[in-house]
Amino acid sequence: MVLFIVGLGLADERDITVKGLDAVKQSERVYLEAYTSLLLVPKETLEDFYGKEVIVADREMVEMEADKILDGAQQKDVSFLVVGDPFGATTHTDLEMRARSQGIPVCIIHNASIMNAVGACGLQLYRFGEAISIVFFTDTWRPDSFYDRILSNRRSGLHTLCLLDIKVKEPSLESLARGKKVYEPPRLMSINTALKQLLEVEERRREGAYEPDTVCVGVARLGSHSQRIVAGSMQELLQVDFGPPLHSLVIAGDMHPIEQEYLQQFRAGSGPDAAGTAAPAAALQQD
Amino acid sequence: MVLFIVGLGLADERDITVKGLDAVKQSERVYLEAYTSLLLVPKETLEDFYGKEVIVADREMVEMEADKILDGAQQKDVSFLVVGDPFGATTHTDLEMRARSQGIPVCIIHNASIMNAVGACGLQLYRFGEAISIVFFTDTWRPDSFYDRILSNRRSGLHTLCLLDIKVKEPSLESLARGKKVYEPPRLMSINTALKQLLEVEERRREGAYEPDTVCVGVARLGSHSQRIVAGSMQELLQVDFGPPLHSLVIAGDMHPIEQEYLQQFRAGSGPDAAGTAAPAAALQQD
Repeated sequence: MVLFIVGLGLADERDITVKGLDAVKQSERVYLEAYTSLLLVPKETLEDFYGKEVIVADREMVEMEADKILDGAQQKDVSFLVVGDPFGATTHTDLEMRARSQGIPVCIIHNASIMNAVGACGLQLYRFGEAISIVFFTDTWRPDSFYDRILSNRRSGLHTLCLLDIKVKEPSLESLARGKKVYEPPRLMSINTALKQLLEVEERRREGAYEPDTVCVGVARLGSHSQRIVAGSMQELLQVDFGPPLHSLVIAGDMHPIEQEYLQQFRAGSGPDAAGTAAPAAALQQD
Repeated sequence: MVLFIVGLGLADERDITVKGLDAVKQSERVYLEAYTSLLLVPKETLEDFYGKEVIVADREMVEMEADKILDGAQQKDVSFLVVGDPFGATTHTDLEMRARSQGIPVCIIHNASIMNAVGACGLQLYRFGEAISIVFFTDTWRPDSFYDRILSNRRSGLHTLCLLDIKVKEPSLESLARGKKVYEPPRLMSINTALKQLLEVEERRREGAYEPDTVCVGVARLGSHSQRIVAGSMQELLQVDFGPPLHSLVIAGDMHPIEQEYLQQFRAGSGPDAAGTAAPAAALQQD
């Protein structure tokens, strides 16, 4: 019948749209993509909310066993759930194109993703340049291709959204070498680690893309109960404990006075509740 | 209690999130911002779905009578509904900051906006540069500041999202001159008008930001039943009838092979149903 690719939004089970929930409820099987991003609630919370089983689809399943996901979708609806929006930071065009090639109609149900909801930090979306990804540095692999993109954005006065590495169910290098996969524990990059890596790269490149005084905004658990947004220099934010994942970071470009005024409420040092934002879930009676 | 600023998503009443619907249901008063964007369903459809009255807030009300919206929000919840995401193309920081200054907590409920859902056209979001707005040219006012931004994006190989003018309840110039406001009928810019204006500006500026052969993607009624996405050169898209509003346009930058492959399904000339996308609402039994 139909493959629904449903965006779940940012934080918890109630961020799904009514349209998305309809799709889940009428689906024979429901998969959850769980390797490029994470909701802030466990799978069981989704299952309770939907009243049906949710199958976690890891990278291997989506990349190697896509046909299993699509199996029977000619006859029955199947939902594939994606944290954020189906066309957010990570797209799922592979699965979609494979479905189409099998004559299965695909229906996309959109939702918020970090790519647009980051506007909550007060920097205006249309003033963002290219987004970048920062991966965990290892002893031997310290890729810094993002540096040129930040430089180019900042030269044009634009803000840069930095998406921070998420490693979930990654096979360890040793285990791959030994031919039997053993998975590393999940690692989710903190704003602090991202800042350290950024400053290390500036130290090496010295082209002035940014400096320890450059204004940034750290955004943690966006859209959740415990959302935390703090603005300050890179140096200041290095000292801030943003708490549990997920974290994102914005490097500010030139700021409009309205952006500056709005950012004030998030300044580092104004206390943990400086945001003054009612946590979305907490403000709702139903939660 | 709380001012909820709730994103409604892109198309119809079922694009609201479950969390957003909870907020609406517990609110004493519900306002709908209806001058910077439009849902594809009338206010009455929302009222039926919510089971309560929706007050349309035009620009005058939001800008001049914000206190009326916030009136009593210290005691009772108030919802302010925004098409797309509260921090999408237009932000509502004025109302939010005013609420905060009155000690009213503000709770943002995110949703999809054109700023992220445009990824559905197959061009990857992280490869978009600065977004631009194109306003209706008049005999005497033909602003082209967007040209430099497209030029800068294209020089960096980046895609450009063009947000097209929406004029709803704008007082006519003559009526302003006569001191008594009479409102113009609503005008929503089509992809074709945007392309004509873009080509006129290139003709004038001649700096090669784009040309009639430049690949663009027209996106109409995104996320709705009747969504239409067509890719082609500017010249080709000028001939395409995209149907009713809302329209948006993307000017492609350098394309990755995967982007090109994905775009194929939307090529101009492959027929009106070339998208092969099941219309979201149509695929759902409940609609």
